[in-house]
Amino acid sequence: MPTISRKGKLTPASPIRKLVPYAEAALKKGVHIYYLNIGQPDIKTPKVALDAVKNNDVNILSYSTSNGSEAYREKLAQYYAENNIHISSDDIIVTTGASEALLFAIACITDPHDEIIIPEPFYANYTSFAIAEGVNVIPIHTGIDSQFSLPKISAFEKVINQKTKAILICNPGNPTGVVYTKEEIRQLKELALKYNLFLIADEVYREFVYDGEIHHSIMSENDMEQNAIMIDSISKRYSMCGARIGCIISKNKVFLSAIMKMAQSRLSPPTYAQIAAEAALQTPKSYFTEVVAEYTKRRNVLVKALKGIDGVTVFKPKGAFYCIVELPVKDTDHFAQWLLEDFQDQQETVMVAPASGFYSTENLGKSQIRIAYVLQQKDLLRSVIILKKGLATYTHLFPNKTLESVPSS
Amino acid sequence: MPTISRKGKLTPASPIRKLVPYAEAALKKGVHIYYLNIGQPDIKTPKVALDAVKNNDVNILSYSTSNGSEAYREKLAQYYAENNIHISSDDIIVTTGASEALLFAIACITDPHDEIIIPEPFYANYTSFAIAEGVNVIPIHTGIDSQFSLPKISAFEKVINQKTKAILICNPGNPTGVVYTKEEIRQLKELALKYNLFLIADEVYREFVYDGEIHHSIMSENDMEQNAIMIDSISKRYSMCGARIGCIISKNKVFLSAIMKMAQSRLSPPTYAQIAAEAALQTPKSYFTEVVAEYTKRRNVLVKALKGIDGVTVFKPKGAFYCIVELPVKDTDHFAQWLLEDFQDQQETVMVAPASGFYSTENLGKSQIRIAYVLQQKDLLRSVIILKKGLATYTHLFPNKTLESVPSS
Repeated sequence: MPTISRKGKLTPASPIRKLVPYAEAALKKGVHIYYLNIGQPDIKTPKVALDAVKNNDVNILSYSTSNGSEAYREKLAQYYAENNIHISSDDIIVTTGASEALLFAIACITDPHDEIIIPEPFYANYTSFAIAEGVNVIPIHTGIDSQFSLPKISAFEKVINQKTKAILICNPGNPTGVVYTKEEIRQLKELALKYNLFLIADEVYREFVYDGEIHHSIMSENDMEQNAIMIDSISKRYSMCGARIGCIISKNKVFLSAIMKMAQSRLSPPTYAQIAAEAALQTPKSYFTEVVAEYTKRRNVLVKALKGIDGVTVFKPKGAFYCIVELPVKDTDHFAQWLLEDFQDQQETVMVAPASGFYSTENLGKSQIRIAYVLQQKDLLRSVIILKKGLATYTHLFPNKTLESVPSS
Repeated sequence: MPTISRKGKLTPASPIRKLVPYAEAALKKGVHIYYLNIGQPDIKTPKVALDAVKNNDVNILSYSTSNGSEAYREKLAQYYAENNIHISSDDIIVTTGASEALLFAIACITDPHDEIIIPEPFYANYTSFAIAEGVNVIPIHTGIDSQFSLPKISAFEKVINQKTKAILICNPGNPTGVVYTKEEIRQLKELALKYNLFLIADEVYREFVYDGEIHHSIMSENDMEQNAIMIDSISKRYSMCGARIGCIISKNKVFLSAIMKMAQSRLSPPTYAQIAAEAALQTPKSYFTEVVAEYTKRRNVLVKALKGIDGVTVFKPKGAFYCIVELPVKDTDHFAQWLLEDFQDQQETVMVAPASGFYSTENLGKSQIRIAYVLQQKDLLRSVIILKKGLATYTHLFPNKTLESVPSS
């Protein structure tokens, strides 16, 4: 049998999706599952986007241009202007989700064995994209105790070397819910300029900031045109994960021309989805006000309920719709699987994402899970009750797998 | 300024799309262009597919499963069964176009500096995908004089070495229009088994075979389960290039599990497009009968007209909807650009794809162009008249750039 490649072997299974077979088995047994594991919002997609697709007048479903339809890119530039991000439609290349945008960006700026610095914990697929390009992720630790804020500049300088090509952040953060301050963004800019690095910001959760926090885009910073690469997507903004429409934005023309060649090689982003995306830009501001109010309530309910469980630590997220929760168990991979395989409370259980997949440093995050608060408040509350009961049973069944006090990572 | 990567620099601009700026300039001057350069069919997408999207009842545009919706994969397996390809829905991973399928397949079976053998000329984006994975393409020459048929097995054996991981074919062929015989497929199978190689077949033009030719899929061959990887797409079959739905099919479970991890890393293929794709499978057989009849007529009209031009050689394609045409000029890159920039006949010109981009051997194909016969017969005839007049003017203006007799490549 011919063999598969190193990257074929090394690419990790999704920590968010790898429990799916256990979930399917639970469903077959008639167990209802509350899905806290995946960032698939239950918020309705804006009607204006849905209607645009229903009323489309396509007769031949053709390719679009490789960088995405011009009409969409022009309207998108207006959207950014309203968000204090001043770019032209030529600075945008539309991609098949932020996933493709990230893969293209990393491919375009790194050679095999180069390094990218990423604050940890981070979105698990960054690891897959790095492996795909033969690149090493150098994690910079951020902790639940310091609210996942960035460490001092010296922590970065300690790991920057000739192989370092970029710093990659997710802001607002998945899985942490951190929202970086203007000072933190300026610090990263300073590093990028001083060490001639790209600064890649995954800003797909731009709209999801709470308690009056303000999101600072790297594209709003001056004097960083050659270094700044913004990654975006409509998946979360308009609850359109299945569209698969994202984009890469940069004012660095050498970078963007190279991305354009990669975009040409895969011909075009999906056409129906671009129709939806263009229409979605007409979504009234009130949509976001309502969505943010709803997520704020969900977060508050969730965090309060979680704090009521003995031995549980939780950071109250400032943005996105995830939170990292530290549990009094030694291995949440085992615990999460057990919840699906062997536990139920009144024929119900929960599916959570073990956090180890969000860390590249070995053995970190093993007591943590990520919860996506994309369910209604009553379902979140019920989920926390199940989690609490599950923890109690698990502690009883596996005393050697549980912790007396919570470790700080 | 931070620098871009080797692959960022090396990825070629699309030979099919790189002339776009000159076309745009011509359009601005009011010149009408006949597009012979791109495989975007003018055939209508089946109504059943268009209607399914118009009548969709999506309220939240969610991710699908990473390997594509189960309903779609099950119906797809039935379609293949009707085409003498017996696979199960579990052997399929739905991708964002054949482009992603090819990229994943190459990523999954090659490490940097490995080699893939491809009969030349070949689809230009194979080069981009190989560069993306750091892989070397080893071309096997096929010539217009021998109707682009495969050379003897010894020609392959001469280049096979320890770094060889796969043979990649496109059947029916883009850009040649070749349809491999059962003997040719068996010969490739023999090679794959003898040297423990993967055999990747890009079969996106399966339905487009003429004059009673029969398409032989590699998946219809026995005893090659661990070696065979089929790449497919609905882009050409249903004139749905903009859907961006393709798939990878293999019975090699180790290979497919690794592909699944890559599929998970980009979350899911586009959802609306899967609705269209699933419905498209209900397209009546008569659709293909009509389409094939139409392409046969177009091909006949085109080839006959081209043969009427002095110094032009053309292979009458047996499948797909492209043909390679050898012109009495030294550099079709220059000629194609000149047609757009400086030539017009009654305010009209043609856009063709210079063939050099379809060759990886340097200096091959420089006298050739690829014509996609995706226009109506009268437009094809008019295009050939423009091409003939253009050739006459070009010969007159640039005698040192034209050839007295046609070279054989």
